[in-house]
Amino acid sequence: MSIKIGIVGYGNLGKGAELAIEQNEDMELVAIFTRRDLYTLNNSKMVNISEIERYKGKIDVMILCGGSATDLPKQTPKIAKTFNTVDSFDNHVNIPQHFEKVDKIGKEFETLNLVSAGWDPGLFSIYKILSESILPVGNTYSFWGEGVSQGHSDAIRRIEDVIDAKQYTIPIESALNKVRSGKNPVLTTREKHLRKCYVVVEDKADKVAIELEIKNMPNYFDEYDTEVNFISQKELDENHAGMPHGGYVLRTGESKTGTKQRMEFVLELGSNPEFTSSVLVAYARAVKRISDNGQTGCLTVFDVPLAMLSPKSNATLRKELL
Amino acid sequence: MSIKIGIVGYGNLGKGAELAIEQNEDMELVAIFTRRDLYTLNNSKMVNISEIERYKGKIDVMILCGGSATDLPKQTPKIAKTFNTVDSFDNHVNIPQHFEKVDKIGKEFETLNLVSAGWDPGLFSIYKILSESILPVGNTYSFWGEGVSQGHSDAIRRIEDVIDAKQYTIPIESALNKVRSGKNPVLTTREKHLRKCYVVVEDKADKVAIELEIKNMPNYFDEYDTEVNFISQKELDENHAGMPHGGYVLRTGESKTGTKQRMEFVLELGSNPEFTSSVLVAYARAVKRISDNGQTGCLTVFDVPLAMLSPKSNATLRKELL
Repeated sequence: MSIKIGIVGYGNLGKGAELAIEQNEDMELVAIFTRRDLYTLNNSKMVNISEIERYKGKIDVMILCGGSATDLPKQTPKIAKTFNTVDSFDNHVNIPQHFEKVDKIGKEFETLNLVSAGWDPGLFSIYKILSESILPVGNTYSFWGEGVSQGHSDAIRRIEDVIDAKQYTIPIESALNKVRSGKNPVLTTREKHLRKCYVVVEDKADKVAIELEIKNMPNYFDEYDTEVNFISQKELDENHAGMPHGGYVLRTGESKTGTKQRMEFVLELGSNPEFTSSVLVAYARAVKRISDNGQTGCLTVFDVPLAMLSPKSNATLRKELL
Repeated sequence: MSIKIGIVGYGNLGKGAELAIEQNEDMELVAIFTRRDLYTLNNSKMVNISEIERYKGKIDVMILCGGSATDLPKQTPKIAKTFNTVDSFDNHVNIPQHFEKVDKIGKEFETLNLVSAGWDPGLFSIYKILSESILPVGNTYSFWGEGVSQGHSDAIRRIEDVIDAKQYTIPIESALNKVRSGKNPVLTTREKHLRKCYVVVEDKADKVAIELEIKNMPNYFDEYDTEVNFISQKELDENHAGMPHGGYVLRTGESKTGTKQRMEFVLELGSNPEFTSSVLVAYARAVKRISDNGQTGCLTVFDVPLAMLSPKSNATLRKELL
């Protein structure tokens, strides 16, 4: 019997989840819940969010595809009162608080929920716990990119006379190689990543001033070396429409003898939202199974035995993947 | 209270485990069990294997450091009758059978055991299950090296007039890059790895004949491009004394839209046995904890929630690593 999935939210992440479910034969998409006007959406699975309670008992796990800034802090606790959920809450500082809240609700309302799946947090967290548990003496480094940062692109778009913009975060190769060498370098923010911006401006815009404003923007750009390129809307649309991303988690450690050991994990993602939603879908499978065992409350990727992510049986996993 | 560990076997892996335990503050090495003559070993923890039963109740987990060919198939089932165990059984084809045997004994004698930890099987298995669960449409590739293959070095040493030898398995960079490109190439054995041999021979040896014998050795070398270098024992001792190894697990997948996604995992190990034993030590921690929850039988790396590997509390893990 297939796992019945609901999707809440139909932005990039929700669309990615819809596609990812199609790639998993043991799953069935029951409905997509949205706040949008349904008449504009040509999709028979679409249901207005106001009707979500009617699906109680008909959906095993809800994949919550809202944003972490304003949607998920309210949405996850609310929907967790009726359904098992998975979310990608990625506001790192607030994860413990989000977890506690959802855990309490899950236990009270007897649902099982998993928060902060995705790749960072999520897979990166998995690689960190694995590598520091195996190599307790050492250093862990994370690099992000090459990829589009939505937050930084938005920040540029808020500047006057800017029509559109795309910002790429780029890990600096020489810093990566310094880490790989096992020298355990101390790296400043500026030494780790470069920021490359493609900006479309009004004809009347003062490009020199805009470039300066971007480069000196506190929190976003001031601590980085930033490259600003002014291009046309046509160029932006043609060459920068994708949402690639990725990154690296590296741990360089030492055995007691001083012997160097390195673990490195690399993601190169053609589409950030499609990958993130693929992770959510795999964890939805785990939530369904662990919930079937009677567990309630809240989990993170640290609490899930990896066998729960796979549609294969334990015996098949031992035979094929060990 | 620290986790009380016993080590069975004092070869490279056992020595590595002894060192790794020193790097973990929540662990205490109680005893090392060996078949060797104790008078030749200057180590106060050393106990003859015949006395192992006397340690019942004094050791939480036994780390079994024997070889997979002849030691572990007998040792794990035997010791699992009295103690919780972790082993690195790596004979892939026989893992299901080994698991079943140990699982039955664990359930009967109320011990908990984890088999086939290490990096392959072990970490590589983890990366495979993660990547194929997240990217169900795609291909997984494994490469090994650059590193010393003990089995291939031994095979060369068995040739007449060969005094000593070391064989390095080397992944072929162009094949790695073809995989990384997402082209999902079909690669022959010869296209993936190169074998490089350093061989010390008797003065009277027929080098041409030995080189031919190596290159055509069935199962070991005949399917590979092999390079044979004759060197002196002094050179071998000075430049080839280490036991480096490592490898790559790559999965290149596609979202439903055809967008390419790549996950890559890299290990670069200065010492293969020291790293493998570090993995065993981390899994010994997990076995102790899961056993404390009352579970018995046999586990693999697929069954262990990752939080169990870390000495940190769940709350600390969520705060620091998510």
